[in-house]
Amino acid sequence: MKSLVLDRIKSPLVLVDREVPEPDNGEVTISLSAAALNRRDFWITQGMYPGIRLPVILGSDGAGIVSQVGPGVSDDWLGREVMINPGWHWGDDPSVQSPQFQILGMPHDGTFASHVTVPVESVHAKPSHLDLHQAAALPLAGVTAYRATFTRGHLSADDHVLITGIGGGVATFALQYAVAVGASAFVTSSSPEKIARAIALGAVAGYDYRAEDWHQQLKAEHEPVSLIIDGAGGDGYARLIDVAAPAARIVNYGATAGPPSNVELFKVFWKQLNLAGSTMGSPADFTSMLKFVAQHQIVPIVDHVHPLADGNAALQRMRSSDQFGKIVLATDA
Amino acid sequence: MKSLVLDRIKSPLVLVDREVPEPDNGEVTISLSAAALNRRDFWITQGMYPGIRLPVILGSDGAGIVSQVGPGVSDDWLGREVMINPGWHWGDDPSVQSPQFQILGMPHDGTFASHVTVPVESVHAKPSHLDLHQAAALPLAGVTAYRATFTRGHLSADDHVLITGIGGGVATFALQYAVAVGASAFVTSSSPEKIARAIALGAVAGYDYRAEDWHQQLKAEHEPVSLIIDGAGGDGYARLIDVAAPAARIVNYGATAGPPSNVELFKVFWKQLNLAGSTMGSPADFTSMLKFVAQHQIVPIVDHVHPLADGNAALQRMRSSDQFGKIVLATDA
Repeated sequence: MKSLVLDRIKSPLVLVDREVPEPDNGEVTISLSAAALNRRDFWITQGMYPGIRLPVILGSDGAGIVSQVGPGVSDDWLGREVMINPGWHWGDDPSVQSPQFQILGMPHDGTFASHVTVPVESVHAKPSHLDLHQAAALPLAGVTAYRATFTRGHLSADDHVLITGIGGGVATFALQYAVAVGASAFVTSSSPEKIARAIALGAVAGYDYRAEDWHQQLKAEHEPVSLIIDGAGGDGYARLIDVAAPAARIVNYGATAGPPSNVELFKVFWKQLNLAGSTMGSPADFTSMLKFVAQHQIVPIVDHVHPLADGNAALQRMRSSDQFGKIVLATDA
Repeated sequence: MKSLVLDRIKSPLVLVDREVPEPDNGEVTISLSAAALNRRDFWITQGMYPGIRLPVILGSDGAGIVSQVGPGVSDDWLGREVMINPGWHWGDDPSVQSPQFQILGMPHDGTFASHVTVPVESVHAKPSHLDLHQAAALPLAGVTAYRATFTRGHLSADDHVLITGIGGGVATFALQYAVAVGASAFVTSSSPEKIARAIALGAVAGYDYRAEDWHQQLKAEHEPVSLIIDGAGGDGYARLIDVAAPAARIVNYGATAGPPSNVELFKVFWKQLNLAGSTMGSPADFTSMLKFVAQHQIVPIVDHVHPLADGNAALQRMRSSDQFGKIVLATDA
């Protein structure tokens, strides 16, 4: 099979030919049509991830057709169009993943390949309203956004939701979910083009977070925000605490801008704010996400499709944060 | 009436004789037996509070006997032993106080006096198991601790609770509540004497937060903490994020040590933590607190009783954080 392998930290991925791994007990092999990139893949190439084991095939997101079943798995799976839940061994506690939790693509070989072999319990039918490229764009970012907005953020139609860093995969799904439930959504970005695209998707307005007073503008022009979905942290975090309505929820699923430099705890307690951390999603989050996406016919925004051989260019595009939506690899190209 | 008046910021309170204010429509006058100090009183003397209007009689906590009723208030109140809910105009939203919220003792004249006149809806019967000095020690810290631990922190018997800065009024009530429900309670303090007193009250163990590795000790010796009640913030906040169990709640009701210098957002989202701000309490929190205190026969810890004339010495004791429990002023002394 064709596969994109990370041999060494901070080295380009290498396209190599490997044996298709045989499915073991309870496993299936999927002939992949597409994979999608996540920031995690980039962090791993930079050595910024705990427990890195090399060489590895990166990639947490994939969709394709079941081509082989292992012992104990029904033949009915053969030929079915499927996608993979990349979060494994979550454990029994819906509130947090277990210490055994792992994500497909490290240490288990991932989806930047023409085939992948995974436990059948991680395999789900492809939503019928999506093609295989769109389905590959959904799992990791889609479930992360679902847990952040619904399970942790308790999003409802009454909310005024602020989603920071629109264009990122999770942020874009969060916007689509917020619009789907009828909430009023606002976004931030340094790119007028991305703000325009967010508005086209249903956002009420967008703000350039580089403007010193963007949060004052938002407060002046609209009702205060009751829910904030943030993946950045960093210096901008203080603005989120400012812009949050009393009793608001701020959910963080990432810290691409590093730790917040200034958390004004006085405002946190006087405004009775709720700051929640969220990462990935439980199996229940994943199935709820699939149900929600089907019910609202949500189609993942695919930024660009690269052939598998161009995986390094795809990673570079994600590193520069130029994308709007998910970057997909056509693994059968 | 005797009253302790703040005339100027950063000046000592002055004992002056004033007319007892007549109760207006819906008000009662209480002949006070005792008042209690809160950190808020000290902040106001330092000018560190929004909207300060001078001169003012400080004091949010008081208990005594109703001596006069205004128009529209039943005579049945006369002679009853009562205490005051110092949080006024909370509003209709249980999740957060309204912009009209105010606390007795600024701008409305407070309890550092022989009499106080307040709306009858803020007046509650003294819990029968408490004397008037103990009852005066309860309201502000008692309701703040109740909201932080129960309404916001969802304390239950299964919790391992860490309470920082034991000895402070809110922290001490939080400890008493945690012990009352059967939770395992841990405390921090820089004082071995305070830790010993906390253990005598039912805490499992205490740690000196000045030790670089106190949080490692706690983790090594006990199960990880599922709930943290903190009024300090500051540099020590990072340790709280470290010591918190996965999915733990950290409730902040104050920031006496200033804003946190380092909030490792990565740990917040990877551990799926819940950081909640909490201040004061709603009317429902107050009545629930009174019910809980009566049910569990909780007796507020009175650190020291000063005569009203020694109010400045009492404020100084609070400033130095030497106290364990509440500092009370005998307003009838």
